[in-house]
Amino acid sequence: MAAKNRRIVLAARPHGEPTLQNFRLEEAVVPTPRDGEILLRTRWLSLDPYMRGRMSAAKSYAAPVGIGEPMTGGTVSEVMRSEHPDFPVGTLVQAFGGWQDYSVSDGKGLRKVDPAVAPPTTALGVLGMPGMTAYTGLLNIGEPKPNETVVVAAAAGPVGSLVGQIARIKGARAVGIAGGPEKCAYLTRELGFDAAVDHRSDDLPGALAAACPNGIDVYFENVGGAVFDAVLPLLNDFSRMPVCGLVAAYNATELPPGPDRSPLLMRAVLTKRLRMQGFIVWDFASHIDAFEREVGGWIADGSVTYREDVVEGLENAPEAFIGLLKGRNFGKLVVHVA
Amino acid sequence: MAAKNRRIVLAARPHGEPTLQNFRLEEAVVPTPRDGEILLRTRWLSLDPYMRGRMSAAKSYAAPVGIGEPMTGGTVSEVMRSEHPDFPVGTLVQAFGGWQDYSVSDGKGLRKVDPAVAPPTTALGVLGMPGMTAYTGLLNIGEPKPNETVVVAAAAGPVGSLVGQIARIKGARAVGIAGGPEKCAYLTRELGFDAAVDHRSDDLPGALAAACPNGIDVYFENVGGAVFDAVLPLLNDFSRMPVCGLVAAYNATELPPGPDRSPLLMRAVLTKRLRMQGFIVWDFASHIDAFEREVGGWIADGSVTYREDVVEGLENAPEAFIGLLKGRNFGKLVVHVA
Repeated sequence: MAAKNRRIVLAARPHGEPTLQNFRLEEAVVPTPRDGEILLRTRWLSLDPYMRGRMSAAKSYAAPVGIGEPMTGGTVSEVMRSEHPDFPVGTLVQAFGGWQDYSVSDGKGLRKVDPAVAPPTTALGVLGMPGMTAYTGLLNIGEPKPNETVVVAAAAGPVGSLVGQIARIKGARAVGIAGGPEKCAYLTRELGFDAAVDHRSDDLPGALAAACPNGIDVYFENVGGAVFDAVLPLLNDFSRMPVCGLVAAYNATELPPGPDRSPLLMRAVLTKRLRMQGFIVWDFASHIDAFEREVGGWIADGSVTYREDVVEGLENAPEAFIGLLKGRNFGKLVVHVA
Repeated sequence: MAAKNRRIVLAARPHGEPTLQNFRLEEAVVPTPRDGEILLRTRWLSLDPYMRGRMSAAKSYAAPVGIGEPMTGGTVSEVMRSEHPDFPVGTLVQAFGGWQDYSVSDGKGLRKVDPAVAPPTTALGVLGMPGMTAYTGLLNIGEPKPNETVVVAAAAGPVGSLVGQIARIKGARAVGIAGGPEKCAYLTRELGFDAAVDHRSDDLPGALAAACPNGIDVYFENVGGAVFDAVLPLLNDFSRMPVCGLVAAYNATELPPGPDRSPLLMRAVLTKRLRMQGFIVWDFASHIDAFEREVGGWIADGSVTYREDVVEGLENAPEAFIGLLKGRNFGKLVVHVA
């Protein structure tokens, strides 16, 4: 056991794209759990786009990380010391340990991870927050019906890849948008998407239209920007749009140049009778058991597959995170910490 | 019975605000009903903002009126000749007769109007399409809960006034936005709104914020523009936004100047988890009996009141319609044709 707690803190708020200078690796004393608490050792740290939001001071659905505070993040952690009867030493848990070696928890919100059921890293991906985001948003807001067309961007990532696979399971046509031929081939050959569109295409609107001959009934929105611009004209009447992320805008330092196109968006909402709804996974917290049971079953019977992109070493988390916002990862990005 | 059928046709598509030159009063032969048809005499013609959309060639939820064709519109009409067993001569019906003295119908979509139950003009207002728009959109999409705050613009009009009154019936706080002190006083003194805000105020955002100390939970969107800009920062998490009209944009000839604020709108959808849904009244056609029964009951017991603005003479419909888009009417605008 290391004598020190390495932790990556927010050194400064980014202006635009985060850089390595926005993070600082520090060493602190390993904390001591009090009565009712446990000491957790981070085994794997999840890196996710929402963390860009936590680096900013702008009001959002969660408080920002303070300057000098450890970056927040989901982890798979192991209980090293326990003053809590429910979590004996050696227990593996899904926690919110942050970008650090050690954290202390009172047990609230922890979920035990059974490595006999699935690889522990899946608790951060297909069986964790990203998977549940896909499952709850698609089924509760998107409500895909047989033969409808479901479009999702960042489709090779942990959310998008599950959105497309669940859409297929529900009898819908799945069209994925991803960056580059390798990811696009993965979508159609390995995940069973009906079509894949490269967002780096010279003509994204044309390529997407060709991939969606019957228009779009569900657009699972996690990126915004140019992809959304290509989607909007293709949306069918009564289409649904779960909105869980806008990665393309996260690093923006100013609004795009004019004209102001928001009246166009509202006109589409009205004339096409769109339903657009923002959500975060915790809005559907009560669905977690159904999610684990159902997606766990689909993994077990082979109808859902997943891919992970594992980076070695906590010290490499900042660079990996910066790459995540640029789409450099291929699969769920996880840092192997210990 | 007049020997001629006066009708107002679309002479030219407007660029921006409609003018009298966009309309033309013609005389045609009174049509003759064939077997299974009836000849209808227009008694009252409804004028509604959606008609601006029908004057444009842009794709929407309904086909545009063709150049030289009579303007479309809801009417209360009387059966003058009948070749249809269900509609004897003298029957009063809610029809889609258009801006003309006479029309022929095969009976499809007609609803009989009983003048003993309510004044026939209400079939074009509080008990017609505008009333049902308010009722279905507010209850099915807005879903107001007790003590929530419901905001509606064009609140002295037939849709907005019923939205606010139903919100009150459901235990919510109703805040109406209207143009000028007379309409605002009407909202609070006669309709029971909790607060009224004049959109001509020097500081609409400040006035609206003062009227909504607990934020906004439901915004019934029928105007867009500056009102929506004032509403957006006040929307609470999980608020709902039925969208049935965007009057402020109907006469726009180009998009507003930049920057492009649509990313701000999408960010609000995401971080506040807004639900925004476009609808037109026919999407809820199956609710018509419940609507008539329930709103009829509220009128009967005095918990809903309404106001009509009756213009005399078909020939004055164009000018009245132009005024409608500028908010010159006060109450449901109806043309008394015969």
